[in-house]
Order: sequence, then C-alpha cells, then structure tokens
Amino acid sequence: MQVQALQTTSAGSTASCRSRARTVRVCATATVSAPAPTAQPGCKDVCNVAVLGASGYTGAEVVRLSALHPHLKITALTGDRQAGKAFSEVFPHLVTAADVPSLVKIDDVDFAGVDAVFCCLPHATTQKIIKALPEHLKIVDLSADFRLADVNTYAEWYGGEHAAPELQKEAVYGLTELYRDKIRPARLVANPGCYPTSVQLPLYPLLKSKLILSDDIIIDSKSGVSGAGRSAKEANLYVEIAEGINAYGVTKHRHMPEIEQGLSEAAGKPVTISFTPHLMPISRGMQSTMYVKLAEGASVDDLRAKLIESYANEPFVRVLDKGVVPHTRHVRGSNFCLMNVFPDRLSGRAIVIAVIDNLVKGASGQAMQNLNLVMGYPETTSLMQLAMFP
Amino acid sequence: MQVQALQTTSAGSTASCRSRARTVRVCATATVSAPAPTAQPGCKDVCNVAVLGASGYTGAEVVRLSALHPHLKITALTGDRQAGKAFSEVFPHLVTAADVPSLVKIDDVDFAGVDAVFCCLPHATTQKIIKALPEHLKIVDLSADFRLADVNTYAEWYGGEHAAPELQKEAVYGLTELYRDKIRPARLVANPGCYPTSVQLPLYPLLKSKLILSDDIIIDSKSGVSGAGRSAKEANLYVEIAEGINAYGVTKHRHMPEIEQGLSEAAGKPVTISFTPHLMPISRGMQSTMYVKLAEGASVDDLRAKLIESYANEPFVRVLDKGVVPHTRHVRGSNFCLMNVFPDRLSGRAIVIAVIDNLVKGASGQAMQNLNLVMGYPETTSLMQLAMFP
Amino acid sequence: MQVQALQTTSAGSTASCRSRARTVRVCATATVSAPAPTAQPGCKDVCNVAVLGASGYTGAEVVRLSALHPHLKITALTGDRQAGKAFSEVFPHLVTAADVPSLVKIDDVDFAGVDAVFCCLPHATTQKIIKALPEHLKIVDLSADFRLADVNTYAEWYGGEHAAPELQKEAVYGLTELYRDKIRPARLVANPGCYPTSVQLPLYPLLKSKLILSDDIIIDSKSGVSGAGRSAKEANLYVEIAEGINAYGVTKHRHMPEIEQGLSEAAGKPVTISFTPHLMPISRGMQSTMYVKLAEGASVDDLRAKLIESYANEPFVRVLDKGVVPHTRHVRGSNFCLMNVFPDRLSGRAIVIAVIDNLVKGASGQAMQNLNLVMGYPETTSLMQLAMFP
Amino acid sequence: MQVQALQTTSAGSTASCRSRARTVRVCATATVSAPAPTAQPGCKDVCNVAVLGASGYTGAEVVRLSALHPHLKITALTGDRQAGKAFSEVFPHLVTAADVPSLVKIDDVDFAGVDAVFCCLPHATTQKIIKALPEHLKIVDLSADFRLADVNTYAEWYGGEHAAPELQKEAVYGLTELYRDKIRPARLVANPGCYPTSVQLPLYPLLKSKLILSDDIIIDSKSGVSGAGRSAKEANLYVEIAEGINAYGVTKHRHMPEIEQGLSEAAGKPVTISFTPHLMPISRGMQSTMYVKLAEGASVDDLRAKLIESYANEPFVRVLDKGVVPHTRHVRGSNFCLMNVFPDRLSGRAIVIAVIDNLVKGASGQAMQNLNLVMGYPETTSLMQLAMFP
Repeated sequence: MQVQALQTTSAGSTASCRSRARTVRVCATATVSAPAPTAQPGCKDVCNVAVLGASGYTGAEVVRLSALHPHLKITALTGDRQAGKAFSEVFPHLVTAADVPSLVKIDDVDFAGVDAVFCCLPHATTQKIIKALPEHLKIVDLSADFRLADVNTYAEWYGGEHAAPELQKEAVYGLTELYRDKIRPARLVANPGCYPTSVQLPLYPLLKSKLILSDDIIIDSKSGVSGAGRSAKEANLYVEIAEGINAYGVTKHRHMPEIEQGLSEAAGKPVTISFTPHLMPISRGMQSTMYVKLAEGASVDDLRAKLIESYANEPFVRVLDKGVVPHTRHVRGSNFCLMNVFPDRLSGRAIVIAVIDNLVKGASGQAMQNLNLVMGYPETTSLMQLAMFP
Repeated sequence: MQVQALQTTSAGSTASCRSRARTVRVCATATVSAPAPTAQPGCKDVCNVAVLGASGYTGAEVVRLSALHPHLKITALTGDRQAGKAFSEVFPHLVTAADVPSLVKIDDVDFAGVDAVFCCLPHATTQKIIKALPEHLKIVDLSADFRLADVNTYAEWYGGEHAAPELQKEAVYGLTELYRDKIRPARLVANPGCYPTSVQLPLYPLLKSKLILSDDIIIDSKSGVSGAGRSAKEANLYVEIAEGINAYGVTKHRHMPEIEQGLSEAAGKPVTISFTPHLMPISRGMQSTMYVKLAEGASVDDLRAKLIESYANEPFVRVLDKGVVPHTRHVRGSNFCLMNVFPDRLSGRAIVIAVIDNLVKGASGQAMQNLNLVMGYPETTSLMQLAMFP
Repeated sequence: MQVQALQTTSAGSTASCRSRARTVRVCATATVSAPAPTAQPGCKDVCNVAVLGASGYTGAEVVRLSALHPHLKITALTGDRQAGKAFSEVFPHLVTAADVPSLVKIDDVDFAGVDAVFCCLPHATTQKIIKALPEHLKIVDLSADFRLADVNTYAEWYGGEHAAPELQKEAVYGLTELYRDKIRPARLVANPGCYPTSVQLPLYPLLKSKLILSDDIIIDSKSGVSGAGRSAKEANLYVEIAEGINAYGVTKHRHMPEIEQGLSEAAGKPVTISFTPHLMPISRGMQSTMYVKLAEGASVDDLRAKLIESYANEPFVRVLDKGVVPHTRHVRGSNFCLMNVFPDRLSGRAIVIAVIDNLVKGASGQAMQNLNLVMGYPETTSLMQLAMFP
Repeated sequence: MQVQALQTTSAGSTASCRSRARTVRVCATATVSAPAPTAQPGCKDVCNVAVLGASGYTGAEVVRLSALHPHLKITALTGDRQAGKAFSEVFPHLVTAADVPSLVKIDDVDFAGVDAVFCCLPHATTQKIIKALPEHLKIVDLSADFRLADVNTYAEWYGGEHAAPELQKEAVYGLTELYRDKIRPARLVANPGCYPTSVQLPLYPLLKSKLILSDDIIIDSKSGVSGAGRSAKEANLYVEIAEGINAYGVTKHRHMPEIEQGLSEAAGKPVTISFTPHLMPISRGMQSTMYVKLAEGASVDDLRAKLIESYANEPFVRVLDKGVVPHTRHVRGSNFCLMNVFPDRLSGRAIVIAVIDNLVKGASGQAMQNLNLVMGYPETTSLMQLAMFP
C-alpha cells in the first residue's frame, strides 16, 4: 500500500552543501532503504565538472540538468571536431544557459582543477581516454565500455579487445537503485544503457525473489530516435523515421549482454533472454513490454506487490495504480521510471511494462544521479523536474 | 525460391469487363492457387456502389481507391449527421475526385440501382442496417459485426446480443488470401480487423502446417492512430498522441477473439493467445511482432519456407529476403503485407514480423479486394498503387 | 554589444522569502531596467495557490512549474466536470508530483486560506467567476477576458457583452517585460495571449522608437497545436494534424485586436495589421515571422540594436547573434523568447522573427512570472529551466 | 463559376497508345486551353526510360508513379555509389514493384535502347552529364541546372560558371500549365523547383493580368523536409526536425531567382520579391502564403475570378470554394495544386495561399506530366491518384 509522504531532500542545516541545496518535494513511501535525503558531511560546495564528448545529445542533457544543480560548475566541454565553437553554436537551445564554456579539444583540458567528469564519448575510444585521465577524478562514463564485467563478452559484442581490463575491474555498474551502496564510494561508474535500465528496474527484483522464471523472458522494447545519437546517418533522417516504425537489431542488439548480465545476477544463474528493440518516431522515450512466466504459486498481484515494496522509498521509480498503463509521454524530460504489472490471457504469464526517458533515466539523468551519490550530494539534486507534457 | 514473373491482370480480351480493366504489372511467383488475373465472364461493366458511413477514414479510403477502379461508380455516400454536405466538406483531400455524390441519410438511398455496398458503420448499428438491406446487394462489411462466427462470443466481447444471428451464419470471413474461394460467391463478406489481418496472414499457415506450437503465442502489436477512427476523443488529440507511445487494452482488446477464432481453425483446436496492442504516433501503419515456439524438429528456415510457399502466388503478400526487417513505412498507402521470420536468442523460438497499412490491407483495401472477388473483377483492380515513401 | 554577466536571482539575505529562494544563474546583460533579482521585503514565505480550470494544458503547466517553486503551495485545483478525480488521473505525467490535491468543483473551494489564483478557464465564463472571487486574492487570468481595455472591442470579437466592465478597468495587461511596474501592485493581471506575446515583444520597442512604419506590418505566425486546448475536436485529432500544415482564422483570429491594442499604444496611434496564423504539427512552439517597413533612415542594424538595448537586462528575452535564426525547438518547455532581425531582399524592408513556447512564455510561464512579481518573489523563480531539446 | 464535368482522358480509339491508356476520371471545368485528353498520333506504345540519380527521393517517386503508367518501362536506374544493389535495397517500399532493374553506374547504361531520361542528379553535376547524353533522348531534368535562362544569374546563385550554356538556350522551363505548348516539342525540359511551382501557379496569372502590384510581393513559404533530399546531414535528423519549426536561407534561398524570373516574365518587367522559406516537421507538403497588393481598382474577388478562369480547364490546379483554406495534407502524394485568395485586414491587400506536394507537383509528378507531354501521352497519365489522407 502506497502512502504518500512529503520529504524534503535538503534539510535546513549548517553543512555548506546543504545550505545551497534547493528544497524539492519528493513523493515517496516510507520504507527502509531510502536514498539519503541530505548531503554528506564534507562534500564539496562547488564541484568542477568536465563533460567529455559534449557535442552529442547526452552531453547536452548533462548541461541542461546542470543548470538546476546548485553545486556543479561546468568548467570544460570537449568536442574534438567542434573545438573552438561556442556551445550554443552546437546546441542553440542552450544559448540561454549561463557560464557555459566553449568547446575545446580533450587534450587542451587542464584536469588539475576538475573534480569530476561525465564521459559521453563513443565506445572503444572511451577506454583509452579514461585510462589516461588523472586518478583524482570521479568519472561517470555514459558509454558501454565498462558495463560488461567480463571483458571477453565485451570483445564478443563490441568487436575488439578491451583496452583497459584493469579499469573494468574497478568500475561499478551504475544502475542507481540497485547498486547505490557500491556506487557511493566508486571512482569510475559505468552508467547503464537505456534498454538495460528499463528492463532491469522491473525484472531484477522479480527474478531475485524468484517470482518469475528465468528461462522464458521475452522483451519487446520500443525506443525513441535520440538513442541513436546525433551522427548524421541516412537511416535517422526525419523523412526516414517519421510516420513509420520498425524492429531493428533483432537478436543482435548490443544491450543484450548487459541485460543478461544483470538478470543473471538477480537470478543467481545464467539467464538468456529474447530481446527485440523497435524504433519509434519519437525523439525521447522508451518502453519495454516484458512477457514473463510466473513461478509456481506466484500471482500477478505478488509481482506488483514485490515491485511496490522494492521501490517504495525510491524517488525516481513508481509503480502505478492497479490497471494504469505507463506511457512514455508521462516521463518525457524527467528522471522517472513508471512501471506496472498486468495479467496475461495466457495463464501462468504476466506482462510487465516500464517506461523511461532514454536520455534522462536512460542516460544523463541517471549519470547525474550517480555523480550526486559519488560527490555526496542529495541524490535527487537537479533531477526533480516533472515530466513535460505535452 | 522466389521467381519474379510479370503478370498482367487484364488480358486483352473481348469481355466487357476486361476491355476496361487497366493494365497493371503484378509481381508474383508462379504457384498453384493464384488469384484469377482476369475478370470473370459476365461481370458487370459498371458496378454501382453505395458507401454507408462514409464520413470516417475507412469510407474516405474506399472513395480514394475507387478513383483508380475502372468499374466502380459511387452512387451514394451516407453519413447521417453530415447529410446534405458535399463530400469534400467532410474530406477536403477528395475535392479533386470526380463524380462523388454528396452525403445523404441512409434512409434516403434508393438501393434499387445499387449493386454493392461497403458498410463502414460502427458495430452494433451495422447488424440492424444490413439486416434491412435489399437481398440483391453484395455487401462488404468493415465493422466487427459479422466477424465472429459464434454469436455468444460476439455478445461476450461486444456487450450485447447479436441482432442478426441468421445473417451471421451466412457471412463469409473476408481474409482474402485464406478464404478466396468462399468469398467469391458470398453475398455478405465480413471484412477482417486490422490486427487480425496482420496476425493471421503469417500465423495461419504456420499453425496449419504444425510448424509452431499453438499454446505459447505472444503477440506484441503496434498500430497507427487512424485505427481509432475519426470521432473526437481527448485521448486521440494530436497533443495527446505525439511524441509518445503506450500499450492499451491489455488482455482486453476486441480483436482478440477474432484472432483466436482464425488461429484455432488453423490449429484444429482452441488457441488462446497473449495479445498486447500499442498505440504509435503515426497515422497509418501496423506491425505485429509475434513470438512463437517452434514445433519439435522445426527450424526458423522451415517457417520462412512455408510462408514463401504459401504466398508465392499472392500479389499482396510478400516474404522479404532473409534477414530483411519489414517497416510499416514500406507499405504506407498500399494493400501489401510484408513479413519475415527471424531466429530468436531463446532456443526453440522464432520471431515473426508482419506489417500492413491498417487502413488499406487492414480495412478498405482488403474490402476492395473482396468486392473485386465478389463482382468478378480481377482481384487487384485499383489496388496496385505502390507504397508511398516518404 | 552583449556582455554576458552572471547574476544570481537570490542574494543571500535575511528575508524569509530570500532564504528559501533557490540560486539560479541568469544570463543577462547589464542595463538599467532589470527585474529585481531578490525577493521583496515582507513577501509571504508560503503562497497558497488555487488553479481554477486545472484540467487543461495551461493548468497542467502551472502545476509543473510550481514544483520548482519554493514558495508556492497548490491548495486547490478545480475542474467542474472532473471533480473528485485525482489530478494524476487527468494528467498522468504529474503522478510523480508531490502534494497535489484532487480536483474539486470551484464552488467547493474555501478561498479564505488562498492567497492567489491562476485562472485557466474559458473566456466569458471567466468574467463571471472572477467577479465573484473574494477581494483579497491576487489573480492571474490566462483567459482573454480582461486583455482588451475596450469592452466594446471585446464584445465585437468575442460575441457578447462584457460581464465585468469595472474589473476590466482594474485589470493590468501582463506582458511582463513591457508592463512590469504596473503589474507589481496589481490585483488582477490579464495574462497575454501567445500570438500577442510573440509579436509585441519584438515590435513594441521598434514602433515606440519609430524605427518601423505602423501601417504596413504583415505577420505570418505559426503555432503548435496545444494552443487549441484539450477539448476533443475532430480538427485536432492526431490524424487530422500530423504531416500537414494550414492557415486558419485568416483575418479573423481573436488575437488580432489584442495585438493591435498593444502596437497602437507603442505607435501612439491606431495600428491595423495583417495577421495570418498557421497550425503546425507540433505540440508546443510558436513563431511569428514579421515583415516590416523601415522608417526613413532606419536600417536593419538599427532595429537589432534597439532590440538588444531594450532587452539587454531581461532574463527571458534574447536577441540572437547576427544572422542566427531562432527555432521554436530552442525554447521548448522554457520561458524564453528568442528573436532576431534580418534584411529583406525588398529594399526598405526587414524581417523580424520571434519564437516562444506557447504554453510557457505564451501562457503559464508568463503567468508565473507575473505572479512572482505580484507576490514579491524574484521574477525568475521556478522559471529558469532551460529549453528541452531534443 | 465552376461547372464540374466528367472527362475521360482516354477516348476509346484505335491508336496504339490510346488503347492501353487507362480510363481516368478528371474533374475539370470547360474552357479553351485544356490539355489534350488523348494520346498524340504516332506516340510510342512503350517508352523506355532511364532514371539518372535514382537513389534520391525524386528518383523513388518517379518509379512509384511509373508503376501506374501503361507506357513507361524503366530500363535503367543509375546511382553511382549504390551501383550493383537491388533497387529495393535502397528503397524497400518499392520491393513490390515489378520489373525494376538494379542500380548501375551511369557509365554502364546503354542509351541506345532508351527513349527518355529523368535526370534526378545534383546541380552542377547535371550539366556535364546531360551534355554528354545522346541527342535522341528526351530529357526531363529535375535539377536546378537549366531553370535559369540567364547563365550569369546561375553563376551568381549557384557559385560556378555554367558548363553547358548552349544547352541552357535550348532548355524549356517546365511549369506545365504555363508553358505547355513550348514543352511539347522540347528535347530538354527544366523541371521547376518546388517553391517556384507553388508561387508561380497563383501569381503568374495575377501579375500578367495586372491585378496585383509587382513591387510588393511578400512570400512566406513552408516546406516539408523531403525537399532537403536524402543525403545524411545532422540538421535533417529526425530528432533535429521533429516538434519544431524554423525559417532558413532568409533572403538567400536559391529558388529566389527562379521565382523572380517567372514573375518578371509575367509582369513584363523585373520583379524583386521578399521570400522566406520555413522548414516544417512534415515529410511532404509545401505551402506558400503570399501577401500581395491589389492594383488600383482590383478586388479580392477579381483575383479569385482570374485564377478560376485561368485554371478552369486544368486537371491539376484547383481554386477552392470561397473562404476554404488549402491544407498541405489535402494534396499529399498527389499532383494537385490547391489555391485560394483571401481578403487581408490591411486594405488594398490580399492573401493568396497555394499548396502542393513538394515531391509530386513540386518535382517528380510535374516531371511525369512533362514527359507525358513530350512523348505524346495524355498529360494526366499515371498522375490521377487522389491525395492520401490521413
């Protein structure tokens, strides 16, 4: 049973971080494992941040979200091909942002004064660049490079030897709600992929509690186009995408092993899934429709109850009222994940639906959430904007 | 193996129908059960048609397609609330159509001079109106009223006693490729729903040939908004639909029993399915992604081969080359169904994808195909327009 | 010449309002008439707000923006037809908002504890309701009812006698940047229409300074569909709007007299305009492309210089760099207005382009800006979210 | 007064072309200069066509339209970078087209057996390639290379010396309704640009008849994205275009001199225009909203009457009923141009609105119309498909 409770994430207090943290009203239900609502003692009042690879959509989102963050100060934005340009030339919607530096080459950044880095670079490149970064930096990496614990799996799916296997060992997988305690002390956080976020948030607790079977999970996912990035490809032109939908990467999508890694951990044994992503004519938004088999004796209500219990205290995850269907448009621009469980007409089965904004909870928002953890700020800082509809 | 063959649907001949039939080039492969490429002897040179309920999208599509038909002449368009209006007031995109009568009330139609009727009325209403129509009329009904052979199933899903059970017995289900021989002599054709068309075309032959199991069929369908019709509902406003997706009618969609009826016939035993429709921000287009279990000994290649064989000679169904993914945008505005079969990562499973334009093969196009059959015209008449992309 | 300056809208101070105001970084240029960056002494720490007519898009935007406001507390949401429903039933994207009351009938609101009202009701209704509200309330009215100073003009364009002419005299027109000093002490603010906002912001200073002629102003405006509201109309269905554009209300749009009223004041004489609005397949966003004639001796550069000077110190208005074209997508979800001036190929003419988000600066955002003024909060409070792109 | 008349474009007759021409019903009004409804004596029964540069959208449209043409046979499709691919790999929506050859390099085409060519290549390249083509070919060029009669104007706007000035002299400008008699005997037709088509069709007769002034024409045009072609550019990605609009090429668009050339001819003196194109989030469709000054004594009704008279007999141009606003969605996929004239609120002014599908009447449809003329087929052959809505 969900009991709404008002909870402010910045208690009035004397610590320097707290005094600048803004008051946000979080809607949550009281349970045990809530994220710490206040800043950690000793956290930095100003965190100087560099965004590497800032000319893509995830980089722009980091900048957009930073504008509501009282502690982050962006001191460097890199983009090797666009170096020298004002950021507003590359992202004119941010022309009204204050204090945004021009783009520079990554080699021209002086990391001495930098505290933390969002790494928004393409995979493979990322490994080499992170390897060369100074040790004092906190890093949230939005690429796929450090998400797969097994470097052989990485090599198999990404087509090349991993260049930094020792860093891979150090990296912490950043699905915040599931690995909060490991993320907090981490130096390098591997921010999850968008599909894996939308799948693991609902299925992890269900597998962990053995309410669903692990050998018959069918995932039909639908994603907005921004997930494909900003590089100019014929297939992603407006005219190619509008007024149509299609499956892609059938059985071959690179998020597959990442999902299987997480679900295997939850199930305590290797899990293989059926996963078919679809491309939608929307800019943002992702839905995973998951067809699962109930364990002996488990009911649809048990699944809902487990998810409600698991996320009762989480500010960004919400199990909707019974029968209410999540829409991607209801999380647009926000860091929320909405989910629900439905009975299937096939007996012994259930349908789980989860939606996120692929650029926020599926990328830059979760990255910010992780940086907040790592830096000791209240986890929700700069992330409590509500969804924008229409 | 597909062998392309040029086939003209109007052989130069002496029969009156043939002489006016235009030459279209049909791409097909030679097999046994091809649709008759020429008009039947004795068919009417001019078929006078009334469209009942012409103020909705399916009505407009019938008119659009008729403009390319050398034998159809629309002599009445009905729309009770819009009676008296020029058709171009209701559908301004048809202002350039010639010879289109104004809308009248259904009671004001003189059916004496009418040969055939497209019935585009809402369900429930339809039964009563068709019951009252003169017996000489050929009728293609686009509503759901005569699709379910069992009137009890109708009552269960549509919430009311069937008003014309005797007509229900007479009605022939109009999935053209599967029931061509029954449709030809029919007086009343129950034109299939859009979802059922997209599902049965691929799954019927697979179940019939026992290549897939009948007790574990999971269907994740995606539809454009035009399927919801033209009536003004808040949920279908541009602003409510754009830039978002959602599931709807989970386990409760009315096309469910229609699909199950067809698949049960194919399997030779009662089939229950998992069916989850999703609403897409596109006007036209429908995709069904079907997750099926292979029968013992069957392979993905066997499934593809069966579909290729089944539809080798069909002008409107096309199994794509191995590995090629169907897109809804590739059938936009056309009467084609594209399909393919893919291996699943879960062993013993396959993924079947089919796409149609919900307003054409899923409604008015298939209705025209059926009327052509019933009237003895070449089945493809007025339907060979290629898809419009972009 | 624009000189960027960091300016925080909440100076650390002792007043209660200030202490809770969050730090936002405003990008502005130093001039004389800047909005007060700090809260007024004696302003209320908590402002209890009722939103009347909360079931439309502007109501939802008010709630969305309120969530980032440290002083506003929404204590009543009215919606006569939806009374009794949870707000998240009506606007599921706000399910994650905390502390949002359920909808009630307007007659059931106890205004005793309410400090301020956003009135989001339809025109005509509004007059009567506002007339009946207690005098202690501060009111920002988003309808058209109090925008036209001349009640005869109102009667002519809105088709009915004005029911509250005495209130009309009291009402202050709320185009914040132009009437800030009058708005501050007002009890009733008539929030401007979206088109009038996008036109007056650029043209008012140009007419006032006599840089352009007042008798040859041609305005071609383009608007997103949300401007049409949430009521279910066939014309605004997704399928009717998508993939097409059209002019509407040619020479007859009701925003015409409002625009002419403002421009006449600026010109010091009656101004008649050519105004043609167009409907775009976008949910949010508005652009006005204005074709103007230069006054004798005036140049395009003079126009740009005048706009830069006029808005140098304004947090929400930005004249773009020379040659840079404003896009509606660059203000999506934000309270900003971007504008620029371009040379025309016809000599003696210039082209002025301005863009806003019709629901924010064109409606609820400006309403919030006005409430902030009226209540004594820093004007930018809750409004510094950057545009969301993509 | 418009009197609708049914007119069949293929009279039953003995000429070979006629016998295969299909019956289409054209809605037109009787006047003097109607396009010849029947094929010319001696025209070829089969016209072998090569499409040069077939991998772009205009090439695909030519192929789509050809499928309904009883005389055209596509014998070569060129695309240098895609040579060797099946056409359906490049345009999967045409997978169902019969008889479509694979792409080859232009140098590999044997033009001996080719009768006519659609040239869909980029400007500059085109000149050189057409110069090298055999003289027996009929050519319809969709590029801008031969549209400007003055090669100096070409050099000024397209940034380079014209490589085939002698061919330029021979080329006939292909705005069919205005230059039909010159096009018929032409060897090289310069198919007009989309903006120039949408502007000249309405304004040419008005200027010619001196009903409007030539020195104060303001054109605000709106175009779909397909006009930008299929090449992969960041600016045309789905995510960059969706949910936003913007002006572009302000005062600098290359269609400017083409429009001015045509209007100057009509006015009998040099005409300079104000022309501002805007990019819309639609794939197809173009609207020009034209603000014109009435000549002394002329009225809005005079303008309408002149347009009605001018196009009374034209199958593809339609002046709508008084007060009815043209929408781009009402010509989608069709070769029609809808137009109307409206009073302006500024006295002495009028507003003219015209809409076309930029890929059909604005490109490939008009090209087909021109080829029909040149080859002696009924002008409407393969072009009578009605608009597709939704």
